Amino acid sequence: YAHNQKSTFMQEQRLYYLYNHWTMQAATYFFIFVDLFLAVFEDPAVYPLPFLATSLVEVLCLLVFFGRLVHFAKVTPRNVFWKDTKNICIMIAILVTLIDLIIYGALKISNVNSIRWSRFLRPIFLINFAESRQIRRVFRSIRNTLPEITYVFLLFMFSVLMFSLMALKLFGDRNLRTVEGSPYFTNYLEIVFDLYVLVTTANSPDVMMPAFDFSWWYSLFFITYVVINTYLFMSVFLAVVYNNYRKHLKNEIRKLAYMKRHKMVEAFNILKVKEGTEFVVKEAQWKQLVKLVAPDISTSHRELLLRVSDEEQKGYVDKKSFVRLADLLNIQVIAMRIQTHPLEHWMPHVYNSAVSLFIRSMVQHKGFVWTYDVIILINAVFIALDEENPLISYAEWVFLSLYIIEILLKVYTYEPRAFFSKTQFWNWFDTSIIIAALIATILNTSLKSASQYNSQQVLDIVFILRVLRLIRIVDSIQRFRVIMNTLINIVPTMLTFGGLALVVYYMFAIIGMELFQGKIQFFSRNSTAHHARECGNPALKDSLFARAKYCKNNFNDITSSFVVLMELTVVNQWHDILSVSITQVLNFILLANGFALVTHQAAKLYFIAFHVVVVIMIINILIAFILEAFFVEYSLEKSEVETAIERKIQELG
Amino acid sequence: YAHNQKSTFMQEQRLYYLYNHWTMQAATYFFIFVDLFLAVFEDPAVYPLPFLATSLVEVLCLLVFFGRLVHFAKVTPRNVFWKDTKNICIMIAILVTLIDLIIYGALKISNVNSIRWSRFLRPIFLINFAESRQIRRVFRSIRNTLPEITYVFLLFMFSVLMFSLMALKLFGDRNLRTVEGSPYFTNYLEIVFDLYVLVTTANSPDVMMPAFDFSWWYSLFFITYVVINTYLFMSVFLAVVYNNYRKHLKNEIRKLAYMKRHKMVEAFNILKVKEGTEFVVKEAQWKQLVKLVAPDISTSHRELLLRVSDEEQKGYVDKKSFVRLADLLNIQVIAMRIQTHPLEHWMPHVYNSAVSLFIRSMVQHKGFVWTYDVIILINAVFIALDEENPLISYAEWVFLSLYIIEILLKVYTYEPRAFFSKTQFWNWFDTSIIIAALIATILNTSLKSASQYNSQQVLDIVFILRVLRLIRIVDSIQRFRVIMNTLINIVPTMLTFGGLALVVYYMFAIIGMELFQGKIQFFSRNSTAHHARECGNPALKDSLFARAKYCKNNFNDITSSFVVLMELTVVNQWHDILSVSITQVLNFILLANGFALVTHQAAKLYFIAFHVVVVIMIINILIAFILEAFFVEYSLEKSEVETAIERKIQELG
Repeated sequence: YAHNQKSTFMQEQRLYYLYNHWTMQAATYFFIFVDLFLAVFEDPAVYPLPFLATSLVEVLCLLVFFGRLVHFAKVTPRNVFWKDTKNICIMIAILVTLIDLIIYGALKISNVNSIRWSRFLRPIFLINFAESRQIRRVFRSIRNTLPEITYVFLLFMFSVLMFSLMALKLFGDRNLRTVEGSPYFTNYLEIVFDLYVLVTTANSPDVMMPAFDFSWWYSLFFITYVVINTYLFMSVFLAVVYNNYRKHLKNEIRKLAYMKRHKMVEAFNILKVKEGTEFVVKEAQWKQLVKLVAPDISTSHRELLLRVSDEEQKGYVDKKSFVRLADLLNIQVIAMRIQTHPLEHWMPHVYNSAVSLFIRSMVQHKGFVWTYDVIILINAVFIALDEENPLISYAEWVFLSLYIIEILLKVYTYEPRAFFSKTQFWNWFDTSIIIAALIATILNTSLKSASQYNSQQVLDIVFILRVLRLIRIVDSIQRFRVIMNTLINIVPTMLTFGGLALVVYYMFAIIGMELFQGKIQFFSRNSTAHHARECGNPALKDSLFARAKYCKNNFNDITSSFVVLMELTVVNQWHDILSVSITQVLNFILLANGFALVTHQAAKLYFIAFHVVVVIMIINILIAFILEAFFVEYSLEKSEVETAIERKIQELG
Repeated sequence: YAHNQKSTFMQEQRLYYLYNHWTMQAATYFFIFVDLFLAVFEDPAVYPLPFLATSLVEVLCLLVFFGRLVHFAKVTPRNVFWKDTKNICIMIAILVTLIDLIIYGALKISNVNSIRWSRFLRPIFLINFAESRQIRRVFRSIRNTLPEITYVFLLFMFSVLMFSLMALKLFGDRNLRTVEGSPYFTNYLEIVFDLYVLVTTANSPDVMMPAFDFSWWYSLFFITYVVINTYLFMSVFLAVVYNNYRKHLKNEIRKLAYMKRHKMVEAFNILKVKEGTEFVVKEAQWKQLVKLVAPDISTSHRELLLRVSDEEQKGYVDKKSFVRLADLLNIQVIAMRIQTHPLEHWMPHVYNSAVSLFIRSMVQHKGFVWTYDVIILINAVFIALDEENPLISYAEWVFLSLYIIEILLKVYTYEPRAFFSKTQFWNWFDTSIIIAALIATILNTSLKSASQYNSQQVLDIVFILRVLRLIRIVDSIQRFRVIMNTLINIVPTMLTFGGLALVVYYMFAIIGMELFQGKIQFFSRNSTAHHARECGNPALKDSLFARAKYCKNNFNDITSSFVVLMELTVVNQWHDILSVSITQVLNFILLANGFALVTHQAAKLYFIAFHVVVVIMIINILIAFILEAFFVEYSLEKSEVETAIERKIQELG
């Protein structure tokens, strides 16, 4: 029986390790992205595939998600598993998607086209699997901010409504006309929408021009409006989001610190022995523990930690020092062993010869860096010059070889393992860019000579790599390097943010495609198709939208939808893109069906919702992220623990 | 001799008081604004006046400034006066303006038109007179931020240049065309300008469309660009400005706190007597001092302060408590004496009769507030309805009398001095809005019946006042009131900010007028003038600028210039307004003179400079202002001193 129990325990432990194995996590993410990526092949598709193929892949994904969930259930106590809303969410999403698939398939067989509405739920898998802790944290932060934001938003909307009422009274009876010749500011709801758009500054002078043409006094109305609603209220939104973000962050950090301390105290209580009046942990036990939890660190590093923890060398560690152990282990102590260069090891005579020494001192000289900075600048000029000139395309080879020589010289001079250590971001960056450029250039040349065919994709990559090389010049200036390092440190957080953006964009893209697909068509410039100049829609004849050639800004497939949503995020012209165009289109199409007014307003709601969610909430969180990162960088002082270690290192010499 | 010296001292003291008298300060500000306002009448003028008139007024202003400066010199030690750059600045500005006036006048007499370039210097008077301490502080803050900002800006420009180079290589050889049919992304400098404008999101989809039409892959280039340069770098700018602002603020506050403490310790040292082992200030002396420095506070308030300072009632105040006195005096203790209503005093029988008591309890009831909230909502609906209907215009009288009745009832119920106390912002707001509306409505009606003439200005004011009344509804909801109060607290800082904006706008407006005046003309809609549809400039034929009817966006006078600069601040469409129009115009006009390229680029520099100064620096400082104000509001906890007073009040019952 005991044996049985032990084997069950072993099995459970194995299952647990398997669940947390990186391959399993990677596989989960792979299938999540496959599931999301299906939108590219589903109708309306970038690359159309039959429904059977996409639905089979989707079912496969769902099976994988279900399997993963079952696996998680096996390694989690039952009551914990069922209490977790994450798991319930996933189960419901799987079930709902299956039902939708069956209904859609059945209707498809009987030739009725319906809507695959469950596609909207796909990002739920990305959010709710246990690995996406960061994204969930951001969502939690959004949820916490909501009440506060709602109040400010209501006040903001009240202000917009008030100004709209004023605008109606001031301009409504003046018989003014907009550029398109329609009546200016006569319908209250349209004024509200126009003034809401003015907050995003998208229709900035246009909305003002008729009144301004009438009398310049009226510009004061719009200036007051912009100052209050764009500058004041948008800053208040940022303040609310940022304040909440900071508060939230503080709470999480406090909670984590408390948990850590609590666990360390528990460990201390298990290991403690009485020494005089106080409880302590003996040196031998301490060492054993450190060996167990951090098997990778060197003996000298462990000795250093012991010296820090047991300053007076009494042969034991007291409670206060013991609790600090977790922090101590987190600090990277870089062993600055001056390793001998492998070449010196293999052929010391050659490596230490006069020529070799001269080369090495040359590379270490400041002038070497400066020379290469000058070379980069000259290269920049050459890149800007005309590619067709054969002299210049040969120059490219010269530059490429110069860069390769630089890297070889550096590896020759500096110890390779130190040169390519984890912390040397710029060395990694340089080397990979140069190698990639070398491969791409060779590929391009061989393709050209082999088939007289100049692959555009390869050439584009070559161009980009060539320009990226120039970034290196920033690294030469100390002040820039600091800013760049902060920017690089932000990258991981930005990835979380990218995940969040993906979730929101995906949901809006799916809805947008269902609402607006096919309403606007793109034709190539020389197309002779009917209504080619009106984006395939007679309603857009002579509209600003068609004249500005915005036809490709449509919701006809997932990539276009993403691009349009990106444009909406950047905010400018969404009035043009959407109000003028799509609502006009909807107006036209749905007028016949008698739904004009309702859907017209509903379409506007879609874009206002997007603005509220993305610009007011998410972009502000992004800005809060970046602000916080920079403030931390500015106020970065060495923590107490780090100082203790540094002092010890200095003491020990 | 002694008498002489004393009378000199007295005279100096009188001069000093005179210098700081509020009428003198108001007069100085009056003449500063007269001087700035001259731009309205000077060529290019809104209301043209002969040069003689404007120049005489300007000389008068300069005399006033000079007199003020001489006055300041008399009350300041000589070495202090000459060391202060402010004074030197004013003197140089006066001198330079005079020289410019003389040269311009002399040339005018000999019929040569030159440029009144010294007008550019007028904001110097606004900044440098001793009263504008706040604006100078903001300028100091900008100066301190400059080095940091410069580094980030260089890095940002480097990024723009890099992306431009990439764009040139990627799109330059594709033979793509923009909407206007010109070659797309072939000239490096134009790409740099276009991508710089993209940072402001002003040309957001337009600049991308040709590449996006070619292949949707290229949208990735623009998305990367926007993420890095618009979101990342603009947030970094905000972070740098905000961080600096906070640091600066902390330093100023620390300095002020130090100064205060230092002075209080000095005062203590003068008054101290030895009591046992420590030095103290006797109660009698303490009271005398408080009477001297704060003659307005009541005896009971003074007793309270003494009880706080001398907790154990020993009859003296120790050093620590004494130093706290300045803070104690700053706290407003509102004496909650329940004053009797004047009506109760005059005719107690009527005021305390059953009817009167019923009215008073009714007004104090919650239902009263709710009733008026409902009335306000109904009023909002009526305002939105058509004005021409006689029923509705009568309803306006009903609402107006309802509001007046409300105020009368409230003044009847509550003590008038308490109702109109300084802290009751909303009561003041309501009453003044209602009285103004009453006056304006009566004025409008009498004008209408007397002359059948409907004054538009008066009517506009009536409309605005009518809508402003609705704001009151916000005050009924607790959560909104908190946000509104914070917003109202920001107002004084916003005024400083308005001064700053005025200075920068004025300078840019003067330069803009000299550069671009008369290039674009505005004609009313039915004008038959030559080139009326092209804004009076054949170069603008068929341009987007003319088609969008932007003709009134010009630099032909100071008000138009201010409006255009405001539009540039709001950022959107400045590409349209400026690049498309003015550079095109300049191109056309100056091509003949052979200065085309140089002035073309110079005009762009004007707008980039404006963007950097206003959007990157000043708007970010504004946002920092607002953020800080809200964070302070959020973290507002009662200070230690306030708590001490409250505790004492509770103790004393």
